[in-house]
Amino acid sequence: MTNQAGSSPNHRNSAPAAEGAFLFDRVAVVGAGLIGGSVGMALRARRLAREVVAAARSEETIELALARGAADRATRDVTEAVAGADLVVLAAPISLIIEHLGIAAGVVDADCIITDVGSVKGPIVAAAEQALPHPERFVGGHPLAGSERRGIAAARPNLLQGATWVITPTAVTDAEVLERIEDLVARLGARSLLLSPQEHDELVARTSHLPHVAAAALVNVVAECTRQRADTMDVVGRGFRDTTRIAGGDASLWADIALANADALLASLFEMNASLGRFADALRRRDRETLERLLADAQRAKEAL
Amino acid sequence: MTNQAGSSPNHRNSAPAAEGAFLFDRVAVVGAGLIGGSVGMALRARRLAREVVAAARSEETIELALARGAADRATRDVTEAVAGADLVVLAAPISLIIEHLGIAAGVVDADCIITDVGSVKGPIVAAAEQALPHPERFVGGHPLAGSERRGIAAARPNLLQGATWVITPTAVTDAEVLERIEDLVARLGARSLLLSPQEHDELVARTSHLPHVAAAALVNVVAECTRQRADTMDVVGRGFRDTTRIAGGDASLWADIALANADALLASLFEMNASLGRFADALRRRDRETLERLLADAQRAKEAL
Repeated sequence: MTNQAGSSPNHRNSAPAAEGAFLFDRVAVVGAGLIGGSVGMALRARRLAREVVAAARSEETIELALARGAADRATRDVTEAVAGADLVVLAAPISLIIEHLGIAAGVVDADCIITDVGSVKGPIVAAAEQALPHPERFVGGHPLAGSERRGIAAARPNLLQGATWVITPTAVTDAEVLERIEDLVARLGARSLLLSPQEHDELVARTSHLPHVAAAALVNVVAECTRQRADTMDVVGRGFRDTTRIAGGDASLWADIALANADALLASLFEMNASLGRFADALRRRDRETLERLLADAQRAKEAL
Repeated sequence: MTNQAGSSPNHRNSAPAAEGAFLFDRVAVVGAGLIGGSVGMALRARRLAREVVAAARSEETIELALARGAADRATRDVTEAVAGADLVVLAAPISLIIEHLGIAAGVVDADCIITDVGSVKGPIVAAAEQALPHPERFVGGHPLAGSERRGIAAARPNLLQGATWVITPTAVTDAEVLERIEDLVARLGARSLLLSPQEHDELVARTSHLPHVAAAALVNVVAECTRQRADTMDVVGRGFRDTTRIAGGDASLWADIALANADALLASLFEMNASLGRFADALRRRDRETLERLLADAQRAKEAL
């Protein structure tokens, strides 16, 4: 899946910045999509690294990444990108992150810090701690700055400004490594939130993956019901459209995420089933008091969120 | 619940409009909220009635309805409002509509046409056909022009412009009555959609009431999960906020709606449960193909809607 063509052209942006108080010397960003591209742009705009090297899978992405200022240098060769870096940011889709960890394991310097931006942490952190010769120098991360738009074209230097960036250290993680990643997150304008990989995955299962599946399940119910008469689609209002907006997301990407977080998502589906069941029970008993309480609970919680 | 104080002051707006080709002579709009107020404004702005009389429950609403041009005349007395009208539009919340039908039954002229704008049709149409001496002159309606905002303050003359307005005739409905209501809907700038009361209720159960309950159930799942640690609320992103926006709606109003449409809503909850179950089964089996197909089905249906 990766493009490691031995000696792909070594594209260059402007000359490397002059020496200074950089947070890192050479940062390799592997995957130049929405997040990877935005991280590269912000690193350069805020002068946090002497050099940003991007790895991307296509020449088009490489050209766009350089044109948009997401890297000083870009290559299709992951090995080349990570060699000599003191920070590697893995920013490809989940399954590729795990593949890139394997490549980085054989190439990076002993003191290189590795992090990632994948939206599920358990499998990635487990793979990192198994694959890397220095697992103490890896710490997982997940900046919550998604967008319906994807790819380098949607990247922007201030995407992470004000975002929450979950960091998931484990018992293995070196304290100085964690500190440097927290510092990086702060210097990128985001807010660190430390969670265990499992806490993170259980939380995003409920706040992100379950809403996506629920929206898709709801759309499928309505599609079935409006199939017979096309004109009945006219009754679909703004409430339904908002509730199901995220169901328009890329099916392949979301299947990856759902499978990577299958256990936590299954547990959250069980909770959703129980939550819907409480409404159904109240309706079946025509129990106005319980129904109104369940709705009022949600109304209050919604305001608090 | 209604205010029928025998001789409430008979507030007046400007002098009645001059004679002309009005669609109706005197229209009584019972309930001066978002929809009733907007109907009154549109009737007056488009000169569709010689006189619009509004009934509202409080003096404040009456004053605001007159100030905003929603009626020529307004009263707290439903009997007074509907007397002598050739069209009555019942525009209060569902349970009050049924109460107002009982009042109208004893007052209106034999040739008066009665309609309503309630968001559940089965119970209202059944009540109308039972209560009214001339059930053939009643036809139910539901303009789909809701808003998060409620009340006369949110009403506007073009709220119904371009909206879908479901009309629910039955075997009992007089053909000329149906035609006149369709004409009214068209002259108000909305599009008629004819459905049986049951078809309507089954459809809105899935496109409106189920999304509301699902959003509330989802908020309750997340509230439970984030209760322990307040900082974890920071992971809640835009996707979740959009998906659950409607869960912020008025709990009492939605409990009314859900109970009025309990059977259809229960059936839709059963379908939602089955739809979620298909995702859970695929996840449990780590069946990527089925999972991606379910998500792609939703993605396609979402685009079509």
